[in-house]
Amino acid sequence: MLRQTSSTLAFDTLGRGLFEITSDISEWVAETDMSDGLLTLFLRHTSASLLVQENYDPEVQRDLERFFARLVRDGDPMFEHTSEGADDMPAHVRAALTQTSLSIPVVDRRPALGTWQGVYLYEHRTSGHHRRVLLHLIGE
Amino acid sequence: MLRQTSSTLAFDTLGRGLFEITSDISEWVAETDMSDGLLTLFLRHTSASLLVQENYDPEVQRDLERFFARLVRDGDPMFEHTSEGADDMPAHVRAALTQTSLSIPVVDRRPALGTWQGVYLYEHRTSGHHRRVLLHLIGE
Amino acid sequence: MLRQTSSTLAFDTLGRGLFEITSDISEWVAETDMSDGLLTLFLRHTSASLLVQENYDPEVQRDLERFFARLVRDGDPMFEHTSEGADDMPAHVRAALTQTSLSIPVVDRRPALGTWQGVYLYEHRTSGHHRRVLLHLIGE
Repeated sequence: MLRQTSSTLAFDTLGRGLFEITSDISEWVAETDMSDGLLTLFLRHTSASLLVQENYDPEVQRDLERFFARLVRDGDPMFEHTSEGADDMPAHVRAALTQTSLSIPVVDRRPALGTWQGVYLYEHRTSGHHRRVLLHLIGE
Repeated sequence: MLRQTSSTLAFDTLGRGLFEITSDISEWVAETDMSDGLLTLFLRHTSASLLVQENYDPEVQRDLERFFARLVRDGDPMFEHTSEGADDMPAHVRAALTQTSLSIPVVDRRPALGTWQGVYLYEHRTSGHHRRVLLHLIGE
Repeated sequence: MLRQTSSTLAFDTLGRGLFEITSDISEWVAETDMSDGLLTLFLRHTSASLLVQENYDPEVQRDLERFFARLVRDGDPMFEHTSEGADDMPAHVRAALTQTSLSIPVVDRRPALGTWQGVYLYEHRTSGHHRRVLLHLIGE
């Protein structure tokens, strides 16, 4: 019999970079006692984002951050929205280029990630922030 | 008891830029009489996209458009697909860099957006177009 | 009565580029015997991605690839994660800039794509790879 449940996980980031949240999400899924279904993650912020990326080599996360830092420059004079600092508008652009929501099937009580996949909260502001991720699971 | 419903919302854009559709979506969700569930938005076009972004300061939307205009130049000689004009292929690239579908949990009869989040239809063509967004809600 | 089903489709790519998988997905949906619902695609890899794009003019796919090849250069000296080759880290960046999951409503036994929309598996490595796409459908 299909049913649904939802919850909010909160994370305190330590500033710009990728924070792996795979185990937090997997634990929540295990607690729901559903074996199969569809998991949705939704981030309630516009200056951070969600990403599925390789979780084996930490160089991947550092290279990814270097790429985004070069593509969307802090303090770019083109940006007018600077009230919260030189990293504010670049954070919104980075969020637009990545994801606010992720959909992941659940199989055998686990998010069905590939062998090298991890789920990341990507903080785009240079200072740490309190971030809330809404989780929704529908299944049985 | 879980159930599902769907509908199509149509919008006439006025040319390139972000058009907020949050209230249209929220009204539709309220009319479905479901209090909790999963809302999916799907845009049936490849030269426009969907985006969750800040809806407080309109400078954010203008800065975002300036960034994309510089990243993907209209009339770039690299592009061969020019039959519909200099803005045609850039529109497809912008769509690839943003989203065609969005998943948003519904809580208490509303899409559970964060305080400063709005849902936008991002028109990438320079002229206005008729755009259709498919809405699907499953919940109870 | 709502129900769910899921499956894995495997594809052998031939190296970098867009591979249309629309018909494979549509056939699977038709076999589930559900007329309406929500289809989710999830790619279990971090050096390839999923994309909804125009499927009419093949120039669009070639232009898209040219854009990404220029934006994320193979062998960029900025990248430290080079153990698997000059195209390895660029593949992860391209994946971050596109999608790992897609949500598409199903209407009348078909994914409700627009007239010119196709679903693509985007291989970002220069050599061919075995790629698995998880499909999940909930509906009736």
